[in-house]
Amino acid sequence: MFADDHPLNNLINEIKKIPGIGAKSAQRIALHFIGLPQEETDKLTNAIQDAKKKIFTCSICNSLTHVDPCEYCSDNGYSDEFLCIVEEPFNITSIEKTGIYKGKYHVLLGALSPLKGIGPDELKLDKLIERIKKGNFKEIIIATNPTVEGEATAHYLVKLLIGFKIKLTRLAMGLPVGSDIDFADQVTIKKSLEGRTEIKE
Amino acid sequence: MFADDHPLNNLINEIKKIPGIGAKSAQRIALHFIGLPQEETDKLTNAIQDAKKKIFTCSICNSLTHVDPCEYCSDNGYSDEFLCIVEEPFNITSIEKTGIYKGKYHVLLGALSPLKGIGPDELKLDKLIERIKKGNFKEIIIATNPTVEGEATAHYLVKLLIGFKIKLTRLAMGLPVGSDIDFADQVTIKKSLEGRTEIKE
Repeated sequence: MFADDHPLNNLINEIKKIPGIGAKSAQRIALHFIGLPQEETDKLTNAIQDAKKKIFTCSICNSLTHVDPCEYCSDNGYSDEFLCIVEEPFNITSIEKTGIYKGKYHVLLGALSPLKGIGPDELKLDKLIERIKKGNFKEIIIATNPTVEGEATAHYLVKLLIGFKIKLTRLAMGLPVGSDIDFADQVTIKKSLEGRTEIKE
Repeated sequence: MFADDHPLNNLINEIKKIPGIGAKSAQRIALHFIGLPQEETDKLTNAIQDAKKKIFTCSICNSLTHVDPCEYCSDNGYSDEFLCIVEEPFNITSIEKTGIYKGKYHVLLGALSPLKGIGPDELKLDKLIERIKKGNFKEIIIATNPTVEGEATAHYLVKLLIGFKIKLTRLAMGLPVGSDIDFADQVTIKKSLEGRTEIKE
């Protein structure tokens, strides 16, 4: 077996630090890196260093950005009457892909999780409250994930924000489009029944 | 959504080039890289460049090495009477972990796969034959994977090597230790029956 200071082991150990990458995947990724042409290796390491240097969280909404405020906060095309609260920066990308929301965003950078030691303080909700107080929002869309943690966060946010007399909404839960009812879990079917929509001619 | 030349998109695109890494994992890995302390980022990019520069395949056995011949080929502690043929360099690591094999290795750098366009020429079997002709091997252990491609490769190797009058063996196939018979597939159970071993008191 290779010594611990072998360049290959060193690389594998660095790759294994990525959350969710196990020993087997780290080997596979290391092999891929070694097999790249030097030009591609340079592109990769430059991309890592470049992103590391230039990307930070927006001082207003916490999204990932290379300018402050970020493109969403500074773009007048994104209405300041709507605020969509998400858990993670990439949730914005998913919502943007739909092309139907053109309001502002706020990223919590997490969800309430007693198990992971994430409470209201870790989500810096003071910053959110300040923003809402100063803002001009007519509707706040709570777009946390449809998970136990996301739901707990949504409930907490509702309690926190209900006093503002701003319309609060939550993303609809129900059957994913293109799926089969038989494959949906009971909770999803229950949500799809509770949230059933009237068919109008 | 971020522009294509955004440093974050650039990084995600580089990460997505890794086989087996989809868009979602690439986002997660990119976030991890951005969140690293600068020192850790440097360790990672240096490890990639260092491994890329220093690691190559051994001129004798095709294992990954930073010296030629590799540590297995040049180490007299590894008997030159045994040759273990594996598909990939990291298969050696798995076998070495058992601590019970102390012979030489040969890495095919793949397995026969008409679908992937890998035939006998791609596996450079001429090099293997030359090595066996010149060598002093008493036993050749065919340790290709217990997959369709690994089995096809093993059969091909047997046809190729049977003339050498060297003992040819194949890794045993059967129930993985610690598993439950009910979870094993039919082919594995069949192999475990065919290869059943006599219990001696």
